[in-house]
Amino acid sequence: MWEFVLAVLRGQAQVDFLPHALTGAIFAVALFAAGWQYGVYGLLGTAVGTATARLLGVARDRITAGLEGFNACLVAVGFAVFLGADHLSTALLALAGSAVVTVVTGAAARVLATWDLPTFTLPYCLMASSMTIAAPGFERIWHNGEGLAALTHPAGGPTTLSWTDLWHAFFADFAQIFFMPQWYVGLIFLVGIFVASRRAGVMACVGSVVGIFTAWALGAPAAEVAEGTMGYNAVLVAMALCGVFLVADAWSLGYAVVAAAAATGLSSAMAALFAPSGGHTFTWPFVLVSLVFLVAAPAFPRLRRPDAAAPTDSADGAEGAATQVAAAA
Amino acid sequence: MWEFVLAVLRGQAQVDFLPHALTGAIFAVALFAAGWQYGVYGLLGTAVGTATARLLGVARDRITAGLEGFNACLVAVGFAVFLGADHLSTALLALAGSAVVTVVTGAAARVLATWDLPTFTLPYCLMASSMTIAAPGFERIWHNGEGLAALTHPAGGPTTLSWTDLWHAFFADFAQIFFMPQWYVGLIFLVGIFVASRRAGVMACVGSVVGIFTAWALGAPAAEVAEGTMGYNAVLVAMALCGVFLVADAWSLGYAVVAAAAATGLSSAMAALFAPSGGHTFTWPFVLVSLVFLVAAPAFPRLRRPDAAAPTDSADGAEGAATQVAAAA
Amino acid sequence: MWEFVLAVLRGQAQVDFLPHALTGAIFAVALFAAGWQYGVYGLLGTAVGTATARLLGVARDRITAGLEGFNACLVAVGFAVFLGADHLSTALLALAGSAVVTVVTGAAARVLATWDLPTFTLPYCLMASSMTIAAPGFERIWHNGEGLAALTHPAGGPTTLSWTDLWHAFFADFAQIFFMPQWYVGLIFLVGIFVASRRAGVMACVGSVVGIFTAWALGAPAAEVAEGTMGYNAVLVAMALCGVFLVADAWSLGYAVVAAAAATGLSSAMAALFAPSGGHTFTWPFVLVSLVFLVAAPAFPRLRRPDAAAPTDSADGAEGAATQVAAAA
Repeated sequence: MWEFVLAVLRGQAQVDFLPHALTGAIFAVALFAAGWQYGVYGLLGTAVGTATARLLGVARDRITAGLEGFNACLVAVGFAVFLGADHLSTALLALAGSAVVTVVTGAAARVLATWDLPTFTLPYCLMASSMTIAAPGFERIWHNGEGLAALTHPAGGPTTLSWTDLWHAFFADFAQIFFMPQWYVGLIFLVGIFVASRRAGVMACVGSVVGIFTAWALGAPAAEVAEGTMGYNAVLVAMALCGVFLVADAWSLGYAVVAAAAATGLSSAMAALFAPSGGHTFTWPFVLVSLVFLVAAPAFPRLRRPDAAAPTDSADGAEGAATQVAAAA
Repeated sequence: MWEFVLAVLRGQAQVDFLPHALTGAIFAVALFAAGWQYGVYGLLGTAVGTATARLLGVARDRITAGLEGFNACLVAVGFAVFLGADHLSTALLALAGSAVVTVVTGAAARVLATWDLPTFTLPYCLMASSMTIAAPGFERIWHNGEGLAALTHPAGGPTTLSWTDLWHAFFADFAQIFFMPQWYVGLIFLVGIFVASRRAGVMACVGSVVGIFTAWALGAPAAEVAEGTMGYNAVLVAMALCGVFLVADAWSLGYAVVAAAAATGLSSAMAALFAPSGGHTFTWPFVLVSLVFLVAAPAFPRLRRPDAAAPTDSADGAEGAATQVAAAA
Repeated sequence: MWEFVLAVLRGQAQVDFLPHALTGAIFAVALFAAGWQYGVYGLLGTAVGTATARLLGVARDRITAGLEGFNACLVAVGFAVFLGADHLSTALLALAGSAVVTVVTGAAARVLATWDLPTFTLPYCLMASSMTIAAPGFERIWHNGEGLAALTHPAGGPTTLSWTDLWHAFFADFAQIFFMPQWYVGLIFLVGIFVASRRAGVMACVGSVVGIFTAWALGAPAAEVAEGTMGYNAVLVAMALCGVFLVADAWSLGYAVVAAAAATGLSSAMAALFAPSGGHTFTWPFVLVSLVFLVAAPAFPRLRRPDAAAPTDSADGAEGAATQVAAAA
């Protein structure tokens, strides 16, 4: 039982690549700070996903490391945000989605293992996109009036970032990974990341800064930047590519910065691509950019992938690297 | 010549995974019952696809088992339904499409073989989607006035299923695999399935029931359920995952039921996704859900894949399993 | 330095599969004839892509053959055409895009090598589509007023091709590969192709004729045919499948003609598919059709792939074949 609780907490933390139970607990606190329903959805989703994986007999090390929980966590919270947390239909769908995403994870893991790639949050993106696009077609689960399908229009409004916009954006970038726009929720998430690994925390900050700078330089509306929607993918990309799936050094840092900037630009493309169907961006930019940059890495001898068999750099708490890489291998 | 006729009939039956010539003949009767043109398109399409494969030198066992015919059959019938069966342009395009889909089948088979997966009706979905989306751009082949590109709106109308709706839906689910909405056409298809394999027939019924229940539970419009558009993917998924590509037992039955429900939900997502381009759902939900659930299966030790080398369970007529699995291997 | 210049010129020529420096120089002349900015963008883009590959340590033979330049060339010219060549923001983005596409090329090459496939212009298509769809969301890079997102409508207008339409279309098909609609620009490109390889030149002509005939037969608007937008994909497909990636003989000629016709139909589908997001067709039809027809080829014993180890048919200048095939292997 205690082992299961630890697996669930690690599952929450694995959203940010960190198989660290205390970090997972802090992430849960952050979700409760945003709204108690989100905290409940997050924990129950992770638990359902982890339990489904056990029921189906998934390899024990994947479950223990929390790798069967993080997609389910995001699916449950995502359903709560987009379908309304207070409806019974949403709760039932979130439970079902958290279970089914385990199958999608198994599929993504097997296909991507062909190129030694991890799944990232691809299973969650597939599941959440399917659900949000499908929902308006079903009257018992759609309670939001008009659908969301619309053609995009060119951005308007001010692009100048005030000091308040800037620091709100910096912290909100960590919170938007879980769809939350509040800066203080992001601050709690950042504390959780630093608790697990100083290096991961630094890279998260680097990603947030790169995301904000890129969005400003390209001319994104200031309001979007301030609530974190332009920068959360950059945070995840920077963490993934410098220290987790590539050995942290000057080359992977530069690689991660370029990738984080690319993911920021891609955020706008994914929004326009999904808009006519009523879909959302979720973490698609992070998933696509990270997969592309990681699968390309062996072509560039200057970039080194961590040796899955080697002892992890536990001094800095980056044990997530070897875990996810080993799981992908 | 007689061998070719048998291959064509098996090709028609392979739409439902059944390499059984008599079943193919019954399926042809069902298409003729829906409209003589559809019967002709179906038979000619299957024949053209099979003949193209022979011309190009495809492996003989694939041709004999009808695996080079079923996508062509659906392509031809699909063109007839969506472009109008009575136009010469449609007939010429259907012939061309039935030939070209052989190449798409070869491509899909080679790529999916990387993970021991069959093609399902992916080649047909690619071909038919391309054609329906492209057609309004060409004046000589588009005779239906306004195009179909539109944004979706949330579902409206009654969701309560009458008794008539229910049994119409149950049979129409078998007919909509071939785009036909008539319950009696579906009944003939179901007879054909039972002739080849009692187990396949039972699973088809299970899939239809799961599809109807899921659609009702989620709140799909009753009219759509009654004409079979919400349930035909569930029928195919249930047949594929319990008894054909996974050994039939309690675990694969549960797995197939979950997958059939997921495919029903995905039907709405695919409709909204294709709507702005003027595309159709075809059997995309079946293909995507079946590929995901099948490629994930090795991660779940409780699910067993049939041994392609072992003698087939001919007592129950499920010889399609080993055939398609062997072809995928 | 001289070696780098040769690699850049070969990179320009590799857009048409020709690792031939003189051809690259002629292609540059064609771009300058269309507008001096396009010539500059093309050369600088190719140079940045090639230099980035060297910086990242990509295998030397890929760089020397120009395989790290052709996607960057198209990215830079594409950005200039769609975002406006005269803006500083466009120039900076084109430089960034030409560098990043090197990573996308590495990713595509590794994934597609699983099935012995080359990347074609897939990296460019991914990059250019992302950019055009994302651009209207950013105020500092979008200077074209209203966005381009729209639903397609059925084609209208005359479909009868005049003699002027016909010969304009024939040459414009070669120019539209680089987004240029002028017949004389296409003529210069064609001269460049013939300089490198008579066979490639003949197949380019065959592709153009097939594209024009198919577009006319299906009923495409005459204006689109005349400016080359319906035929440039057919040109690339015909060259790729008969003589470069498949040994030129009667079978591959027939195969290439069918594929070129399919790509022409697919052009309309891709346009309708991207329209609601504001995206463009680019060379997606060529990439998708060529990948499908090439990955399927081993299923058809009548088609022969060139032996990468064998000496190339240098008498006819088709050294591109072995180069790209070897790079894919």
